[in-house]
Amino acid sequence: MTNPFMGIVSDIKLIAMDFDGVLSDGGIYIDSKGNEMKRFDVKDGMGIKLLQANGFHIALISGSKSNTIHERANSLKIDIVLKGVENKLFAINKVQKELNIIPQQTIFLGDDVNDLLVLPAVKMFLTPANAHPACIKNAYWTGSLKGGEGFIREFTDLFLLALNINPLLPFETCNN
Amino acid sequence: MTNPFMGIVSDIKLIAMDFDGVLSDGGIYIDSKGNEMKRFDVKDGMGIKLLQANGFHIALISGSKSNTIHERANSLKIDIVLKGVENKLFAINKVQKELNIIPQQTIFLGDDVNDLLVLPAVKMFLTPANAHPACIKNAYWTGSLKGGEGFIREFTDLFLLALNINPLLPFETCNN
Amino acid sequence: MTNPFMGIVSDIKLIAMDFDGVLSDGGIYIDSKGNEMKRFDVKDGMGIKLLQANGFHIALISGSKSNTIHERANSLKIDIVLKGVENKLFAINKVQKELNIIPQQTIFLGDDVNDLLVLPAVKMFLTPANAHPACIKNAYWTGSLKGGEGFIREFTDLFLLALNINPLLPFETCNN
Amino acid sequence: MTNPFMGIVSDIKLIAMDFDGVLSDGGIYIDSKGNEMKRFDVKDGMGIKLLQANGFHIALISGSKSNTIHERANSLKIDIVLKGVENKLFAINKVQKELNIIPQQTIFLGDDVNDLLVLPAVKMFLTPANAHPACIKNAYWTGSLKGGEGFIREFTDLFLLALNINPLLPFETCNN
Repeated sequence: MTNPFMGIVSDIKLIAMDFDGVLSDGGIYIDSKGNEMKRFDVKDGMGIKLLQANGFHIALISGSKSNTIHERANSLKIDIVLKGVENKLFAINKVQKELNIIPQQTIFLGDDVNDLLVLPAVKMFLTPANAHPACIKNAYWTGSLKGGEGFIREFTDLFLLALNINPLLPFETCNN
Repeated sequence: MTNPFMGIVSDIKLIAMDFDGVLSDGGIYIDSKGNEMKRFDVKDGMGIKLLQANGFHIALISGSKSNTIHERANSLKIDIVLKGVENKLFAINKVQKELNIIPQQTIFLGDDVNDLLVLPAVKMFLTPANAHPACIKNAYWTGSLKGGEGFIREFTDLFLLALNINPLLPFETCNN
Repeated sequence: MTNPFMGIVSDIKLIAMDFDGVLSDGGIYIDSKGNEMKRFDVKDGMGIKLLQANGFHIALISGSKSNTIHERANSLKIDIVLKGVENKLFAINKVQKELNIIPQQTIFLGDDVNDLLVLPAVKMFLTPANAHPACIKNAYWTGSLKGGEGFIREFTDLFLLALNINPLLPFETCNN
Repeated sequence: MTNPFMGIVSDIKLIAMDFDGVLSDGGIYIDSKGNEMKRFDVKDGMGIKLLQANGFHIALISGSKSNTIHERANSLKIDIVLKGVENKLFAINKVQKELNIIPQQTIFLGDDVNDLLVLPAVKMFLTPANAHPACIKNAYWTGSLKGGEGFIREFTDLFLLALNINPLLPFETCNN
C-alpha cells in the first residue's frame, strides 16, 4: 500500500484539528445534573506526543464550548486551543498568523461540514472513516479508522514515515 | 440512490422524536450512587441545528422521566419537551394542537413499540437501523445508521436535500 | 425462522438472570475516585416490563457486590435481587424455595462459567451472542444480540410470542 | 484450531501486562471537571481471577499515572502495580528481580510501541486484535478479541488449557 503522504509533506509545520469526532469519538455523555463527558483514545494520545516530539505545532479548533477540551488539551500538553469557534477559517488564519505559518505548511483533520470552511487555508484536509460524507468528498485522505478510535495515530504513523521518521520503534514515554 | 423524501415533504412543519434510542444511543449508564448518564452524537446535534435553522419545529416526546432529557434539550435549544409520557398519541396530539399543525405536516422518529401509538397522527414514521423490528415494519424509511450514532443527521441531510436545501455546505455555527 | 420456545414454555414462572454481561453490557466503568458505572439498554428494560406485565417473576442473581445492581433493579421494579453470590445454584434454589417454583418452571439467562452452576436447577439456560464459549455450548438458545444490547428484549419477544402473547403491539408505558 | 500455547508454557510464573488498551478498552473518558474514567470487562476480570487461583503472579506495568489503575487493581486484588512508567524494560526487570523470576518464565500482554521495550525480558509478547501494527508484528500470538473486550479472558482460557487446567468448568466466585 502506497503511503499517501510520501514526498509531499516536507513543508508541514502545523497540524490543526477539530475536537469532537476527531480527537474525541463524537459522543457527548450527559448526566442528570448536566455534567458532560467525552471519550478519547490512548493510542491517539501517543500519536499527538509523537508529533510534538518531532517538532510539529498542534492546534485544537472546536465549535464546542465544553471545558473537556481544556482538560484533554492539558493532559496532552496542547497549548493552542480555540473553542466556541463559529468560523473555523477565521480561527485557523489567526493561528497561522501567530505562528507565522502559511496554508502550504498546514494540515487540518476534520469530520463535519463546519470544518470545511478551512479548505482555502490548508494544504490538506483529512478525515476519519466515519466523517460526514461532505468531508470525505473534500478530503485528500480518509483514514481507515474512526475519530477517537485511532484515526489520529493512523495519520501520525503514515505522516512520520513519509518524513523518514520511524514511529514504530519502542518509545520511552508516559502515556495519556 | 433515490432520496426517499423527494417530492413528498414540502408540507412538513414538525419533526417529533423519541429520546432514548433516537436522540440517545439507547444506553442508560447508572453509577453506584444512582446517578444516570446518556450518550448523544455531535453530528446528530448539528442535524437538529440545521432543521431549526430552516424553521422546523422540533419536539422531544419521551416515556422516560430522566432529567438528562432537559439537559440535552437545553444544549440543543429544543423547547418542546414532553417526558414521562405513557401515551405518545395523546402527547403528539397535544403538541400539534398547540402549534396548530396537522398529521400531514408531521414526521415522527421512533425506535420502540410504544412509539407506534403515534402512527395515526403522523405523515411518516421513521426509524434508525437498530429499531425494534415492529418499528422497522411500520416505518416509511429506516436509516442506515443507528440511533444516537448519526441517524438524525442522516435523516436531516436527506430531508433538506428533498426540499432543495443544501445541508452539505460549510456551516458557521458552534456545535453541541 | 422457527421460534425456539414454541410449545415448550407454558410452565415457566420464573425468569432468573445474571447481571453483568446479561442485563448490563459486561463493561465496568471506574473513575479515578473509585466510583463505578455500568451500561444498560432501554429496549431490554422494556422487555423486563413486558415480562412483569404478563405475571412472570424476575430475579437478578449476581456474583458482583456493586450497588449499581440495586439502582438498576429499582428503576425496573425488580424486587428479587441476590448479589455477591458465590454459588449460583444455592442462590437459585433459595429463590425457587421462597416462590414455591420448581426447576421445570425456571429459565436462567447467563453469560459466564459461574452461571453454569445453575444448570441442574433450570429448565433452560439461555445466553447472549457474546457469552463465554462454555455457556454457548450449554445453552438451549443463544440470542443474536449481545448482553446489554437487546438480548433480553430479543428473548422476551420470542418467549411471549410462543405463549401467544403479542409483544409487538404499541404499549402504553413509561420506559426506563 | 491448535492451541498456540500447547507444550510451551509450563515454565511461566509471571503474567505482566499493560493497562490502557489491554486491561481497559483504550478509551479515556474525561468530564468537564477533569475527572477521568476507564472501561473494563467483567469476563477479563474473571480471567485474572482464574490466573491468580492457579498461582500465577499478575503485574500491571503502565505508562499512565491515572489513579484508575489502583482502583481496578484493588478490585481484582492485583498487588504488583507500576504506573507512570517511562521505560517498561526497566520496570519488568524490577518486577522479575523482586519475584526472582527470569524472562523464560514471563509473558507480557501489550498493545502499543512503548510496550515493545520489554521484548528482551519476556518469553512471549502477546497482543489484542486491535493492537498497534508494530505490536502485532512482534507478537507471538494476537488474540481475536480486542483489549478490554475479552482479550485477557481469551488468553487465560488458552493458556490454562495448555497447562491441562480446565477453565471452562463452573467456578464459584464473586466477580468484578
